This record gives sequence, C-alpha cells and structure tokens, in this order.
Amino acid sequence: MRYFETVMKVRDYECDAQGIVNNANYLHYFEATRHDFMEECGIYFRDMTEQNIFPVVRNANLSYKNSLRGSERFVSRLSVERQGLKYFFRQEILRLPEKILCVRGVIEVVCIIGGRASRCEIFDEAFRDYIVAKD
Amino acid sequence: MRYFETVMKVRDYECDAQGIVNNANYLHYFEATRHDFMEECGIYFRDMTEQNIFPVVRNANLSYKNSLRGSERFVSRLSVERQGLKYFFRQEILRLPEKILCVRGVIEVVCIIGGRASRCEIFDEAFRDYIVAKD
Amino acid sequence: MRYFETVMKVRDYECDAQGIVNNANYLHYFEATRHDFMEECGIYFRDMTEQNIFPVVRNANLSYKNSLRGSERFVSRLSVERQGLKYFFRQEILRLPEKILCVRGVIEVVCIIGGRASRCEIFDEAFRDYIVAKD
Amino acid sequence: MRYFETVMKVRDYECDAQGIVNNANYLHYFEATRHDFMEECGIYFRDMTEQNIFPVVRNANLSYKNSLRGSERFVSRLSVERQGLKYFFRQEILRLPEKILCVRGVIEVVCIIGGRASRCEIFDEAFRDYIVAKD
Repeated sequence: MRYFETVMKVRDYECDAQGIVNNANYLHYFEATRHDFMEECGIYFRDMTEQNIFPVVRNANLSYKNSLRGSERFVSRLSVERQGLKYFFRQEILRLPEKILCVRGVIEVVCIIGGRASRCEIFDEAFRDYIVAKD
Repeated sequence: MRYFETVMKVRDYECDAQGIVNNANYLHYFEATRHDFMEECGIYFRDMTEQNIFPVVRNANLSYKNSLRGSERFVSRLSVERQGLKYFFRQEILRLPEKILCVRGVIEVVCIIGGRASRCEIFDEAFRDYIVAKD
Repeated sequence: MRYFETVMKVRDYECDAQGIVNNANYLHYFEATRHDFMEECGIYFRDMTEQNIFPVVRNANLSYKNSLRGSERFVSRLSVERQGLKYFFRQEILRLPEKILCVRGVIEVVCIIGGRASRCEIFDEAFRDYIVAKD
Repeated sequence: MRYFETVMKVRDYECDAQGIVNNANYLHYFEATRHDFMEECGIYFRDMTEQNIFPVVRNANLSYKNSLRGSERFVSRLSVERQGLKYFFRQEILRLPEKILCVRGVIEVVCIIGGRASRCEIFDEAFRDYIVAKD
C-alpha cells in the first residue's frame, strides 16, 4: 500500500476555547488532504463538480487520540482502497516533530453522476498508483 | 430609518483560544443576518445565485468594541441605504441582556448580473420598507 | 429514552461549492446541540472548562444520508447513554418540514479531570432525566 | 518598508455556494499570515496569550477586488506600522501566478496587558526589522 503525505500547520483560529483544535476541523484537514492528493494525481475537485461528477462523503469515522494546539505542524497521511463503488480513505494526523498520532479516520466516498452513485473512471485512472481494489 | 433585528447565540466553536469569538466570525454573523433580512423581505440568497444574480461584498469595515464569549446571546441589527449601485448595510452586534455594543460594521454590497455591477430591482422592491436611497 | 430537540437553520456560508452543507459543519451542528442540551440541563460548557473539567470527543461516527442546502431549517435531536466513563450522544439532523433524515451520528465523549478520563458527577446529575446508564 | 510574504492555497471548504472564497475567510487568511509573520520574528501568538498579553483586533477594513476559487494559490503579504499603541497591518492577497490583487485590508491591532491597551515591547523588539513607527 502506498501513502500520500503532506505537511500542514494549525491555524490559531482553528482552536477553540479549550486551546486545542476543535474536533470538526479535522474533517477540514482530511478534506484538504484528499483534494491535495487528487491534485497530485492530476485531477481537481473543482473540475469534477463542473463536469457534474460529485464525490460525496457517505460516512466518516474519527478517533481522537491526542490534541493539536495553535501553530503546531503535522503530517496528514492517507491511503485509499476501493470496494465496489465505495472509496475508503484511511487518514491520519501525526503531530510533528515526533509523529504522534492525533486523529485517525476512515472516510467513505462515492461519486454521484447523473444523480446516482456510479463507478468513477476518473478516480480509478487517477489513483491507479495508490489504490487497493477489493471487488 | 427602519431596523431589522434578529437574536443569535454564540456557538462555542466560534471562540478561539483567547476564549472570545474570533474576529472573522462577526462577518459570518453579519452575512447570516443579511440573508435572514432578505428572507424577511421575501427573497432567498440561494435563489438569486440560481438566477445568476450575485450579490457580492465589495468592502467591509468592522470596529470591534467588546468581545462575545461562548454561549452568549446577542442582537444582530441592520439598516440599509442605497447610493447608486451600492447597498450599504450598517450592522451592529449587541450583547444581551444589556445590549452592549460589541461590533459595528458597514458592509458594501453590489449585485453582479451578467458579469457586471448592475441595478438590482429585486433588492429595491424587496427592501422598499427599509431602504434609504441617496441617488 | 428521552430526546432533546432544537430547531436550527443552515447559514449560507456553511455550504461549499457543491451548494450543500460541507460535511465538517455537521460536527459543528452536533456540538452546538450538545452545548444547548447542557444548558437545558443547567450547565455551561464554558463554566466546565473554567473549572478544569474538559469534556472531550473521543470518537465521532457520522453517516450522511441526505444533504442540507442554504437557508434550510432542520431539527437537531439527541439522546445520551452512559457506559462506564463514556457518554454516547446519538444525534440526528432532520430536514424540515418533512423531517427527512440528513445525518446520523454517534459522538463518544469523556470528561478529562486532572489530566485523566474521570467519572463526571456534574454530567450525571445534570443529565439525570435523559441519561440511560449501562454500567 | 519591508514586506513579509507567504504562499497559501485555498481549501475547497473555504468556498461558498457561489464557488468563491467566502468573504469572512479572508480575515482568517490575514490572521494566519500575521501569526506566521510573528513566528518569523520569533514570537508565538499562543505564548503571548499564555503570558496574558492579548493582541486584539480593533478595526478591520477589507476591500474585495477579485475572487479566489477552490484550490487556487496566492501570496499573502503584509507590512506593519506603529502609531502610538496601535499596530496597523497592511495586508494583501494576490492570486498566483499573475499576482492579481484579490483583497486588500488594514487591520488595527492593540495589545491588552492587565486589562488595558498597552505598549507592547515584545512586538516592538520582534518586529524591529519590519516596523515603521509614527509616534
């Protein structure tokens, strides 16, 4: 299995009054990482939407292990697996410099084309070096 | 001059590590209030976008006087004035129960129709009970 | 089992370029609902933090069924169950007026007191009319 | 006058249903840039808060010239001037690759120490290579 990784940094407004990143913002980090991954693979989320291909999140499961605080840097890592029409992105946030696991999540995505979940050849072709398929 | 008012409440995630509402979120409160005002006047922001009429913010000037903290309730008040193609929304956030002024702002909006700033009859008609025009 | 319900409304800035509420914002709606529920029960999230009692989310599992769009109103409903030190908030977002299920989630919360997950008497007392305990 | 610059990229969730970055998010970009600038100068916003020095925004004036769309890259540039107790951050967002001006803003910041606006030696020392003082 091959991973995609990118380094990101907490913006202070993403922290809440507890002084730690608010739990919802990890879904934002995850989305930004998936879209960066897509670009690395040569496709733009924005272009897909304009072609009426809508990747949508069907399920998100997040486990929070440790907190991130203002200005901290972290690795955001993902791998992707396909099962039928579903793409499962396994994502992790690792605080730098020690790479301490902060959040782990599985995001299930399907592509809506013409109003229904459909096989997405653009994804299959673009992700071919990364994807693990279990049909 | 006639005011539109609505009561809102701080959501805790809108506060940052200082324990107060992050300054950017007042623009969110202002936008939500303008859109509620539009609905009160019978128009939906979403519908305008679908008709290719795009109200856009050209300028925003905010003065921060006092802070809001988690769970506090506040009045969000606006009045509107038109000068040529520009709509000036004068907006205030007043902390309850004492109605202490927290933020005051002036938001300049124009309507983009067919790619250029245009006179917006939908606004003029909808806001007729509120608007002050200075042509 | 007893439910807590509140009515909320989509703010347009919560939608993304697909024209639907971005998936991360449902965690915001869920958090705002839990905090409103706490207030209904007589406790303020902000006060707990100031007493060094930190309710934290350990796990969030969200299933997205239908989308919300700009300005739509919805019911946000929760019930709560305790298992040992863990509180499970079962939460749903139901689009009005038809009460169509949009998102269902289970949010696992523990209270960190003095640096470790602890039994939270404030919660147990406050939620006594709602909570289902499975020790 | 010396500028601080950093390159950032639009995250898709920062766009709203118009398909462009929501106007409030530019205040987020501006804040993130000021905090990166502070780090470049050797100080952390988070540390200041922990020392009970609270930099707060008193006024924000933003002019919106052109829009940013999903995934676009931009330069965020600032310069800083001090007038008495007030720090004026002049900030610009320039879309890449052409460096087209999207938003220009002036953010007035004061430091609250012991409950009142105070001269902030930490800022003066840290920003000494950048600051223009007009006493």
